[in-house]
Amino acid sequence: MCKPAIRGVIPPVLTPFGENGEVDYDKHVRNLRRWNEAPLAGCVVLGSNSEAIFLDEDEKLRLVEVSAEHIDPSRLLIVGTGLESTRATVRFTNQVARLGARAALVLTPFYYSPHMTEEALSRFFTEVADQARVPILIYNVPKFTRLNVSPDLVGRLSRHPNILGMKDSLGDIDQLSRFRACAAEDFNVMVGAASVWCPALALGIEAGILALANVAPQECAEVQRLYRAGRRAEAEALHVRLLPVNAAVTATFGVAGLKYAAELRGYEAGWVRAPLLPLKPEERARVSAVMKQAGLV
Amino acid sequence: MCKPAIRGVIPPVLTPFGENGEVDYDKHVRNLRRWNEAPLAGCVVLGSNSEAIFLDEDEKLRLVEVSAEHIDPSRLLIVGTGLESTRATVRFTNQVARLGARAALVLTPFYYSPHMTEEALSRFFTEVADQARVPILIYNVPKFTRLNVSPDLVGRLSRHPNILGMKDSLGDIDQLSRFRACAAEDFNVMVGAASVWCPALALGIEAGILALANVAPQECAEVQRLYRAGRRAEAEALHVRLLPVNAAVTATFGVAGLKYAAELRGYEAGWVRAPLLPLKPEERARVSAVMKQAGLV
Amino acid sequence: MCKPAIRGVIPPVLTPFGENGEVDYDKHVRNLRRWNEAPLAGCVVLGSNSEAIFLDEDEKLRLVEVSAEHIDPSRLLIVGTGLESTRATVRFTNQVARLGARAALVLTPFYYSPHMTEEALSRFFTEVADQARVPILIYNVPKFTRLNVSPDLVGRLSRHPNILGMKDSLGDIDQLSRFRACAAEDFNVMVGAASVWCPALALGIEAGILALANVAPQECAEVQRLYRAGRRAEAEALHVRLLPVNAAVTATFGVAGLKYAAELRGYEAGWVRAPLLPLKPEERARVSAVMKQAGLV
Amino acid sequence: MCKPAIRGVIPPVLTPFGENGEVDYDKHVRNLRRWNEAPLAGCVVLGSNSEAIFLDEDEKLRLVEVSAEHIDPSRLLIVGTGLESTRATVRFTNQVARLGARAALVLTPFYYSPHMTEEALSRFFTEVADQARVPILIYNVPKFTRLNVSPDLVGRLSRHPNILGMKDSLGDIDQLSRFRACAAEDFNVMVGAASVWCPALALGIEAGILALANVAPQECAEVQRLYRAGRRAEAEALHVRLLPVNAAVTATFGVAGLKYAAELRGYEAGWVRAPLLPLKPEERARVSAVMKQAGLV
Repeated sequence: MCKPAIRGVIPPVLTPFGENGEVDYDKHVRNLRRWNEAPLAGCVVLGSNSEAIFLDEDEKLRLVEVSAEHIDPSRLLIVGTGLESTRATVRFTNQVARLGARAALVLTPFYYSPHMTEEALSRFFTEVADQARVPILIYNVPKFTRLNVSPDLVGRLSRHPNILGMKDSLGDIDQLSRFRACAAEDFNVMVGAASVWCPALALGIEAGILALANVAPQECAEVQRLYRAGRRAEAEALHVRLLPVNAAVTATFGVAGLKYAAELRGYEAGWVRAPLLPLKPEERARVSAVMKQAGLV
Repeated sequence: MCKPAIRGVIPPVLTPFGENGEVDYDKHVRNLRRWNEAPLAGCVVLGSNSEAIFLDEDEKLRLVEVSAEHIDPSRLLIVGTGLESTRATVRFTNQVARLGARAALVLTPFYYSPHMTEEALSRFFTEVADQARVPILIYNVPKFTRLNVSPDLVGRLSRHPNILGMKDSLGDIDQLSRFRACAAEDFNVMVGAASVWCPALALGIEAGILALANVAPQECAEVQRLYRAGRRAEAEALHVRLLPVNAAVTATFGVAGLKYAAELRGYEAGWVRAPLLPLKPEERARVSAVMKQAGLV
Repeated sequence: MCKPAIRGVIPPVLTPFGENGEVDYDKHVRNLRRWNEAPLAGCVVLGSNSEAIFLDEDEKLRLVEVSAEHIDPSRLLIVGTGLESTRATVRFTNQVARLGARAALVLTPFYYSPHMTEEALSRFFTEVADQARVPILIYNVPKFTRLNVSPDLVGRLSRHPNILGMKDSLGDIDQLSRFRACAAEDFNVMVGAASVWCPALALGIEAGILALANVAPQECAEVQRLYRAGRRAEAEALHVRLLPVNAAVTATFGVAGLKYAAELRGYEAGWVRAPLLPLKPEERARVSAVMKQAGLV
Repeated sequence: MCKPAIRGVIPPVLTPFGENGEVDYDKHVRNLRRWNEAPLAGCVVLGSNSEAIFLDEDEKLRLVEVSAEHIDPSRLLIVGTGLESTRATVRFTNQVARLGARAALVLTPFYYSPHMTEEALSRFFTEVADQARVPILIYNVPKFTRLNVSPDLVGRLSRHPNILGMKDSLGDIDQLSRFRACAAEDFNVMVGAASVWCPALALGIEAGILALANVAPQECAEVQRLYRAGRRAEAEALHVRLLPVNAAVTATFGVAGLKYAAELRGYEAGWVRAPLLPLKPEERARVSAVMKQAGLV
């Protein structure tokens, strides 16, 4: 039996904090409602851009609960559940499954990265997938983990009935292409770097979990729509126009940049949690300029 | 008022797990009793070698409680409390302070390492130190975090009244020497790599938080005793004899190697938690051989 | 006055060696004649794929001379001239200029990389450009040099009247886009990684110095022709078909892979120079398989 | 038959340049005469600190010739001969052998580092050693090459009759100790980082090829003399006093720092070659301060 195909744009959504550092669930709900109106395929809650690593378990569970309640029910609620140990990852994955998560995005464990060999990662994902009550997605993000999941390993894991796909945030075209070549036919290779959104579509990839989609959901979806409609020149032109925004909200300014850009577009993003620093005035000015130049404000 | 000086060897102790992955607190207590008999200055609980990253909060708190109860009361109970967010680190530090921790070993936050600038780290340690009810120690372990705390930053932070010292596990002699040169007079620069234990003593460093001290506490302490007694040739000869064991229980085989070596010396270490892998038979043989050659079994 | 625009595909050509390790100039000439027949914009001699680092000065000069004589005179002869010192780079650049080089591709000096600061690189390229009798191109190839030329520095250097453009082999789309954004209007940003050839065209980049073009010159040029003709779906399909070949002849098997693939397509590539190793039989089989699958043999 | 043992301190000597960038051979001779008066075991010419990578072949040969003529004939003249190709390294090694070099220090080839596998390096050193008319020394300097020669490979190569020893500039104590453990009894493991000079002596290593010995030859030798005489506390105290100078003339300011420090001690060092930058006034002040504090000026 074939795994269901995931198609479209999915934002790994930010978590709004108040100035005191508390999660502001109301703002989160209002953001969700706006994302619901955009042509998106779903949402990732508790991904890297949600500052999940800063949240305690109660906050995480509440965010999942609230998200499950308010996301358009036709859409995919994916929850980031990767923790360092196998048992904690399984337990947390099954907790969020009960709360309504439809799939779990599982980060490679990485604290002991010198010992996270191919064999260790293979067992980890296999054991999590065996025990998880929802399908899992492998999350490859070498920028944060300094680990790369090899195409060979993806090939083997892609045959597991409960491993639905992967999100790759490295964004190396050669490797993306090898992920596709090595993986089972029905395995969902999703791209996690908006800088290669259009090139990934050209590789036949059909889903993007894109930080940029927090602030430009319509635009990210429009790239794909144009592309599918055969209007590739327009797709590319739009993609290229978005590139400087993407750089600003990811590599250059990180989550703080993403949150500021989101505010500029009317989302309620609030503060980042310490030790992340808020943008300085001149950094805010640079983000604004980039947003203006791209026509987003 | 001067900060108290820390002198001697301190093992960052392992956490025994049963085959089912549960913490075995009884084994931990029996290990503590044995460490109590060795000439050590204290213990670190919840450090990198304790697989703390795999423990849930209840397990962590229980381990601290049990350790506080059973450690020789004249000795220093240090608890690893670094979490990714400032607020969680403060909260957890103050929880373990109530349970008897005498100092907190605070890892640099590192998930968002590209954004963990000098300024971000400076604020983080300052805010944690301001709010912590026990003195804190900076923990620099680039092998796991890919971040290095600079000597300049150490110099500034060393003047904070509640920052008692640091553990440096990079083990670069030039930088260790610059930490000492930049830091305030009463700041405790402690070395966290047994490979440079003897060279660190030569730099005037007086404390070592050494994974190797889990399995060779007497020997690690003896290096320092001989050194202080002016018997440097003997100190060095012993240090050199221990080097291959140190490599085996850290860089080469990690925590799994440390636990196996500890078992060989009569400690009760049990299993590692997945996704760490247990040693394969041939790896166990290599650890045994190295232990034998060093005269430890 | 505007700098001339470079448009099209340019192979950084391989250097054929005999089994004894001698340069085989006759084979080089025969290869050049075949490349002359392909729709290419020129050739790079003495680039990374030519094993230039293994050639002595006489061999280099002879190769330039022979290339100048046999390249279609309407095409651009670019010569790799970057050496570690400023003075050697200037001297060698001017030697090859006298022999017919039309532009010099200048690698970032990198042996003392920790000291190759933005200021050092800025002075280096400025001084070389000031003294060179042909226009120069900046060559950014972090894979080999571990140095990256920043978009800001490219922006400043792009205003120098004798710096014609750059070849970027990092292939990061975000950074490519920032090179374009920072550089002067008439500065030629060329891509040096075939994995992003199609995406680079979408960014408005018009030239590619592509190792892959040694073995698939028509195909690389066809990608661009289709693209310009508005037949983007076909351009992309062809680009995607070539990706596995590109990976094989660059990242996976390096120059030895490139040379074997070239032989399969009827070029005369011969041996690699030691310490590079020739492909093992199973590696040759993998390259063959990839070439077949791409329809290149 | 046993390989001869190398014992003592050997500076990898700097190359004096005039303001116009020309090698100043007279200054080199005067420096050599001063080093001859210090208790050194020899000299390395054309090492990393000589800016050899910036010298053309004529300059290199002339430097070797002049050095062979003026070095105290009882001392070891070692010449850096590593080039990227096997054949060029062999040829150049044999040229300098004819001019009086007694051993060749051979850098790992590194431009194509992703392809410099254990097998490629093994063949390289074996072929060079087979064909060289003087004994060779393996030069491991990951700071510049990003390659590390493994203890296993050192173990195998150490059995080659014409591979006399190695210089390791990584300075990791664990690995140094494993080099010693893996290598044949009569293989000379020499340390190339003054930061671990005293710790290396404790490992039983008997020779140091130390950049610091350019500016503090007596002091580096005195560390070893005191150590051998059983006056280890004094050896260590002196070693520790020199550490900040060593950091300044290597990691922090590189060759430019080394040359300025050498001038302060009465050597004639002159300028660095571009693209290396001369020290700025404030950098010179920092080097002076460090030299003063160490009692070297």
